[in-house]
Amino acid sequence: MSNEKLILVVNDDGVSAPGIRALVEAMLPLGRVVVVAPDKPQSGMGHAITIGSPLRLEKSDLFSNAEAYQCSGTPVDCVKLAVDKVLHRKPDLCVSGINHGSNSSINVIYSGTMSAAMEAAIEGIPAIGFSLLDYAFEADFSAAKHFAAEIAGTVLAKGLPEKTLLNVNFPKLDFETIKGVRVCRQAQAKWVEEFNERIDPRGKKYYWLTGKFENQDAGIDTDEWALANGYISVVPVQFDLTAHHAMTHVVNMFE
Amino acid sequence: MSNEKLILVVNDDGVSAPGIRALVEAMLPLGRVVVVAPDKPQSGMGHAITIGSPLRLEKSDLFSNAEAYQCSGTPVDCVKLAVDKVLHRKPDLCVSGINHGSNSSINVIYSGTMSAAMEAAIEGIPAIGFSLLDYAFEADFSAAKHFAAEIAGTVLAKGLPEKTLLNVNFPKLDFETIKGVRVCRQAQAKWVEEFNERIDPRGKKYYWLTGKFENQDAGIDTDEWALANGYISVVPVQFDLTAHHAMTHVVNMFE
Repeated sequence: MSNEKLILVVNDDGVSAPGIRALVEAMLPLGRVVVVAPDKPQSGMGHAITIGSPLRLEKSDLFSNAEAYQCSGTPVDCVKLAVDKVLHRKPDLCVSGINHGSNSSINVIYSGTMSAAMEAAIEGIPAIGFSLLDYAFEADFSAAKHFAAEIAGTVLAKGLPEKTLLNVNFPKLDFETIKGVRVCRQAQAKWVEEFNERIDPRGKKYYWLTGKFENQDAGIDTDEWALANGYISVVPVQFDLTAHHAMTHVVNMFE
Repeated sequence: MSNEKLILVVNDDGVSAPGIRALVEAMLPLGRVVVVAPDKPQSGMGHAITIGSPLRLEKSDLFSNAEAYQCSGTPVDCVKLAVDKVLHRKPDLCVSGINHGSNSSINVIYSGTMSAAMEAAIEGIPAIGFSLLDYAFEADFSAAKHFAAEIAGTVLAKGLPEKTLLNVNFPKLDFETIKGVRVCRQAQAKWVEEFNERIDPRGKKYYWLTGKFENQDAGIDTDEWALANGYISVVPVQFDLTAHHAMTHVVNMFE
């Protein structure tokens, strides 16, 4: 059993979300699975960490087939706590998700799912974030489960390039309709905000964040194109945010 | 007055932090300044947004010299609300900070200060995050103020490369000792976590996030080197997280 792989499963929809149960089932044939997930939904938390208050970590019996814990913190906190206080070592793989909803293109920036995977990658752990283009609680994860196992198996067997993680998004399609995996780049896109303004029962204003997604990228080598055309998008992601291509321009600005 | 520049000031330490007052004072000679900042400290919030609950936005009279608002959300929420509900247009510049503490190297990922600036950049607004390497409430911002005005003036005059923002960190040094500005790349570094485990009065465990910063980068072209050697570090930052250099490797993995 010394060759058994240790796989950490995290998410941002919380320990009770169907998506993480699907991911645990997908990982079970690949090794020993340990879950450390937020005790409540943490969507849109980005790379937030908890520094002003302490964290709680409790056993969870929501998974009949895996050791599991729930944590009061963010997705990134879960990864940090898992490595230091649960596993006491780096796992062989960290998988995050399966997110209920897209984390393609610019959504990678806001995503707790991807930030958890990125935190693992920063710590030197091979890491993958998985998301399904269906926000519904009742989303059908069966095709996503199949391909998540395949992709995780490939990463366990071959490793990943240094300082690189994967952002995997599944189209909302049946197993038979999915055309396969496409490695691609993050599309240039943004959200155009429109806050919804309301008045509370005491007469004071409050605002709901809403918005319209705008793909500004016509490229056929992007994740948005792949997903719109029936492919699973796989984007290699890095955490060196330096705009190397802009370096000379900026150097000249300050001379 | 039609040429007057409109400057949005945000931060993550909250509207009452001395660092944002220093930044407002630095910006006043450059144009009309409007502040939209969190109503409480939001350090380490990364690129978090508020989607599960509504936001409040209230007038603030903490700034005698500028129109100001406080928002119940994250630093990124502040930028979104400012553009849509306060300014009703894109400002000519968004500056974030001055943060009490470093946002150099890997800290850019966790930083609410930098995420606010990044959100502005995603919306097409020239943006700069400023941080001082001093966590103290009583930190001396006088040198930082001087150079923040200079750097912001340069950006207002010359613009920034497309889809690029600046991460500016000031060493904790006197004006006379600072050697100048150095444009550099993000150092490869990480935090090694050590959770501090305690028992609450009811006998249950809780954990404080602590950690040790580890610079793994010996390069003299990094922000860590610049700061350690008396320079102000200026890192051009991008929000396309695609690991373009790893693309071929990952394509081959899935063939």
